[in-house]
Amino acid sequence: MKNIKNQHPLPLNQIRIHDVFWQKHLDLVKKEIIPYQWAAINDQVPGAEPSHSMENFRIAAGLSEGEFHGVVFQDTDVAKWLEAVAYSLSCRPDPELEATADEVIGVIGRAQCPDGYINTYFTLKEPEGRWTNLMEGHELYTAGHLMEAAVAYYQATGKRAFLDIMCRFADYICETFGPNEDQIHGYPGHQEIELALVKLYQVTGIRRYLEEARYFIDIRGAAPNYFLEERKKPGFKQIFTEFKNYRPDYSQSHLPVREQTAADGHAVRAVYMYCAMADLAAEYQDQELLDSCIRLWNNMVEKRMYITGGIGSSGISERFTTDYDLPNANNYSETCASIGLALFGLRMARLQNDAGYIDIVERALYNTILDGIALDGKSFFYVNPLEVWPDNCMEGTSMGHVKPVRQKWFGVACCPPNVARTLASLGQYIYSADSDSLYLNLFISNEADAVVGDAALKIRVKTRFPFEGQVKIHVQADAPAEKTIAVRIPDYAREAKLKVNGQAVSLSAEKGFVRLRRVWSDDTLELTFSIPPRFVRANPNVREDAGKVCIMKGPLVYALEETDNGSRLASLYVDTRAPLLEHFEPELFGGVAVIEAKGLKISEKGWEDNRLYAENEPALEPVTLKAIPYAYWGNRTPGEMLVWMKEKL
Amino acid sequence: MKNIKNQHPLPLNQIRIHDVFWQKHLDLVKKEIIPYQWAAINDQVPGAEPSHSMENFRIAAGLSEGEFHGVVFQDTDVAKWLEAVAYSLSCRPDPELEATADEVIGVIGRAQCPDGYINTYFTLKEPEGRWTNLMEGHELYTAGHLMEAAVAYYQATGKRAFLDIMCRFADYICETFGPNEDQIHGYPGHQEIELALVKLYQVTGIRRYLEEARYFIDIRGAAPNYFLEERKKPGFKQIFTEFKNYRPDYSQSHLPVREQTAADGHAVRAVYMYCAMADLAAEYQDQELLDSCIRLWNNMVEKRMYITGGIGSSGISERFTTDYDLPNANNYSETCASIGLALFGLRMARLQNDAGYIDIVERALYNTILDGIALDGKSFFYVNPLEVWPDNCMEGTSMGHVKPVRQKWFGVACCPPNVARTLASLGQYIYSADSDSLYLNLFISNEADAVVGDAALKIRVKTRFPFEGQVKIHVQADAPAEKTIAVRIPDYAREAKLKVNGQAVSLSAEKGFVRLRRVWSDDTLELTFSIPPRFVRANPNVREDAGKVCIMKGPLVYALEETDNGSRLASLYVDTRAPLLEHFEPELFGGVAVIEAKGLKISEKGWEDNRLYAENEPALEPVTLKAIPYAYWGNRTPGEMLVWMKEKL
Repeated sequence: MKNIKNQHPLPLNQIRIHDVFWQKHLDLVKKEIIPYQWAAINDQVPGAEPSHSMENFRIAAGLSEGEFHGVVFQDTDVAKWLEAVAYSLSCRPDPELEATADEVIGVIGRAQCPDGYINTYFTLKEPEGRWTNLMEGHELYTAGHLMEAAVAYYQATGKRAFLDIMCRFADYICETFGPNEDQIHGYPGHQEIELALVKLYQVTGIRRYLEEARYFIDIRGAAPNYFLEERKKPGFKQIFTEFKNYRPDYSQSHLPVREQTAADGHAVRAVYMYCAMADLAAEYQDQELLDSCIRLWNNMVEKRMYITGGIGSSGISERFTTDYDLPNANNYSETCASIGLALFGLRMARLQNDAGYIDIVERALYNTILDGIALDGKSFFYVNPLEVWPDNCMEGTSMGHVKPVRQKWFGVACCPPNVARTLASLGQYIYSADSDSLYLNLFISNEADAVVGDAALKIRVKTRFPFEGQVKIHVQADAPAEKTIAVRIPDYAREAKLKVNGQAVSLSAEKGFVRLRRVWSDDTLELTFSIPPRFVRANPNVREDAGKVCIMKGPLVYALEETDNGSRLASLYVDTRAPLLEHFEPELFGGVAVIEAKGLKISEKGWEDNRLYAENEPALEPVTLKAIPYAYWGNRTPGEMLVWMKEKL
Repeated sequence: MKNIKNQHPLPLNQIRIHDVFWQKHLDLVKKEIIPYQWAAINDQVPGAEPSHSMENFRIAAGLSEGEFHGVVFQDTDVAKWLEAVAYSLSCRPDPELEATADEVIGVIGRAQCPDGYINTYFTLKEPEGRWTNLMEGHELYTAGHLMEAAVAYYQATGKRAFLDIMCRFADYICETFGPNEDQIHGYPGHQEIELALVKLYQVTGIRRYLEEARYFIDIRGAAPNYFLEERKKPGFKQIFTEFKNYRPDYSQSHLPVREQTAADGHAVRAVYMYCAMADLAAEYQDQELLDSCIRLWNNMVEKRMYITGGIGSSGISERFTTDYDLPNANNYSETCASIGLALFGLRMARLQNDAGYIDIVERALYNTILDGIALDGKSFFYVNPLEVWPDNCMEGTSMGHVKPVRQKWFGVACCPPNVARTLASLGQYIYSADSDSLYLNLFISNEADAVVGDAALKIRVKTRFPFEGQVKIHVQADAPAEKTIAVRIPDYAREAKLKVNGQAVSLSAEKGFVRLRRVWSDDTLELTFSIPPRFVRANPNVREDAGKVCIMKGPLVYALEETDNGSRLASLYVDTRAPLLEHFEPELFGGVAVIEAKGLKISEKGWEDNRLYAENEPALEPVTLKAIPYAYWGNRTPGEMLVWMKEKL
């Protein structure tokens, strides 16, 4: 018997979402993002930095002539586009799109070297450099994204061509990296392939892929440090000048992963690795590895995470720093890092059967991840600050990485396609299942066909969450079946009540789930809870937030924008004794609950003489503050934005 | 008749300082700093980054063998040491030290190329690179520092050897750079030589040096940009990778200087240039240039200066950013930049006959500049933040440039010798004179022999400033003489009163000076003012300081340290309605006034469960705050430091 149990998601093509909150974003995937990103990877977006990524593949395939352009991981733009396409096809068939994707896959196949290797940078530009710079070369990272895309495409279409291409590459990688003397004892500078190899194993059943993932995880951080040794070899060529003084903690290779106790280094690298660790803990029943995951998760969410689910607080190196170091204006909080956080949290929720993880996953999805993309689906945030003064976001300074408006595309374009694939695969977050139970994690209106062990259940969820706290769940069994249906009671829910077929039942949640065991045939659950807007404070050790509050409603973090509140948002105090007022604005951002608060603003009175410092007493003026969901800031006239407001004590 | 009048300092060797506040710092120059820096430039400080700068000169002189080590401007370490030695010798003769300096000068002479050129980097390492990379090469900057040292050494000792060496170099530079077709139409990437050439002109009377300074100032920023053109030339070799995307505003070459309206770019470059502009405005009676100086000064001190007199708020590129952008924790505020600010302000005060400039000069001297050096004279701050959390100052992150403790020496060691030469030449700031008037700028106990036109006055100043506001000035004329003695009334002085020979006189200050015209023979002035500790606030447009206050006493900015106030300084509120209490602690920092305030601290109560975010109401505990002068922070147990405190409203 297994000690570490695991749950699985429902297949994406068994879930049809039609949700008041998410629908407009999901619709963009097919209508805007996938076509836009297709244009982007084909360099057809005017004014955007050219990606050149499709052209690189065409050149490598012998279908075009020219030179490689872009960075070492440019291929991942194509991989992530394909993965988004795959998820989109899972939910909404589209023969034309599928034909385009098939063509791209054909090009990738032709760009594959006879030994299975795929990477247009090293094939076209640095053929002698293959595997010589694992620290920076991103070959294994790129391979991982292609593998994830291949798995998703196989699951969506049943077509094996891409999967076979990537199995050939995986076979070559398994031969190349491993413990034997004739193998390289290295591991990726940017983790990603580990979780991809687990997926490849899960769809193909080929166990060596799983073992290779474990090899990469277990060898990581062994002494002497691989990356520091690698750079001493003759002919080693530095790719990124900023890595001249490479610190192994940057890539979580300062210690074996089982000995790591804090979320350190580059945030995306970290969370992608943690995902693989969680997967391997389940596959190998590895309690020690699971304990590491719990430790790292706890450090991350209890000491190093923004209230928006953002992680990685240093603008330099996109990395974690130290406990409680969460600057709001010059942070990084990369969109991709929050995607990784959500992926890791989802795995932990399934391994630990604990909705507390979902609280964090939901926080990341509704705030930083959604913030990553404009309402029109055409521009993107890479960096997600909690406080923005557009005037300060000046190139060549400490604020140069912060953009006050979403950008069309990026030279390093990991985030836009990563958001696309996340939206396209949102269904995976909604349910978890094992042979006996179905878990409803998120309150998103949908219809799903759920296989729970030997039972087939049709589930219909209807809600106006996160604006309202009523969730109707209709369960229809093909044949009456005794199963557990577990519904998450989120940490912010107040006065939660549950009715089964109109009858109130006592609600006792365990690890955040209320579990209902019964014979299901044609039943209705009604969960109601209240989600009034609320003031939230940070642990007083978070120096940047001391004396400040933030407004939340359910999982939504709210922010002030200059458009609604004038400039100098830092001069505002919010009166936390006055009630928060909420109303729904159907025209704003496609329909949204806005929140009003009472406050005070430091006046400029007395400062008319241009003095910078003076003994003037502060003059305060009463104001009404209007807050909108953080995820939607920057969709109107550009201006200041603020999440953490000063509290009038 | 001149429209732009100018004043001059008294010669350093005519001023003997013996001051309650400054003496302990000045004593360090001869006793600690000069010997320590001598050891440093000779690589004899254990644990410090080696400078190699003397060895580079010895190698270039043919006296030693080996390779150049260090950065392109490594020679300036030696130049600044010599300049500090020169100022020290002005006040305190020391034949042994002078003999050592003479030897160094001999080495420099032997390292000079036959054409006059001096620069060990380009002589030893890149002989073909001379003048090919003005943007980064620092050849003219290094030449400027050597010229300044030569002028100071000549003034201190009357010896011409060094001056002659530097005149040969200056002659070569004048031949090389200029408007003629066979000359280079370039200018320094780092300004400094401009003000040095003016000094060289002032002691030698050789007018081409002054004209060359004007050439460099006037050609700067002409289109097309010299630096952007230069890098297109075949064989151009980048020195610093961070300048790959060079922005001309970084070096104030984005516009001709007369068209610049804001203090932009690298802060030290900017203020060194402004100094030369002020000098040239006076020498050439150039009102347009003076107007530029006034405009740039005003922008700087009204929009872009820390309360400590720090400038350059971006940790990346050590540069100015935008108006009112003054982050406290991750700023730069380089010690050298404040030195340049003081030098520029002093020139402006003399040109404009306005003590308002001295208020700023004094602020820089008593805070950021003095902060640059430890009380034992052996360690230094390059970066001067206003808020420090030692835990966050982590290499490889956005906070990596901030050091929570002073460092022994730096690879790029501009600041330590720059502080040394500033302390050694403190006398130049105390008085200004013209043929009819003597101005007392700073309240520093001293005796001086002042020549004012045809009169010789012995001045004796006695004060316990900045701890107390009584200043006794005794004036003894060799022969009775009608002159004006002007005494500064600083902006922070309260209830100022003036007595002449025991008789109260009405005190009316004009542009910050009270001017007393009389026949002086043997007279005593007594200025008394009160300088109670006070709360100072920032303009509400300074977002980082909104809702905060700072404690000052006279020119001294005060700071909280963890040693006195525990950790989590950001959780403190100060009660500005309660009085500030002051007392003198004779044992602390060699004697200092400390200030106590009443306040509140956000408690950790309710946060015992490790949650990062919660709805907990804030709990406040009453506390007493103890503040010490900012300049002295970091001289005890390392810990947090805070200047701007939250105000309890």
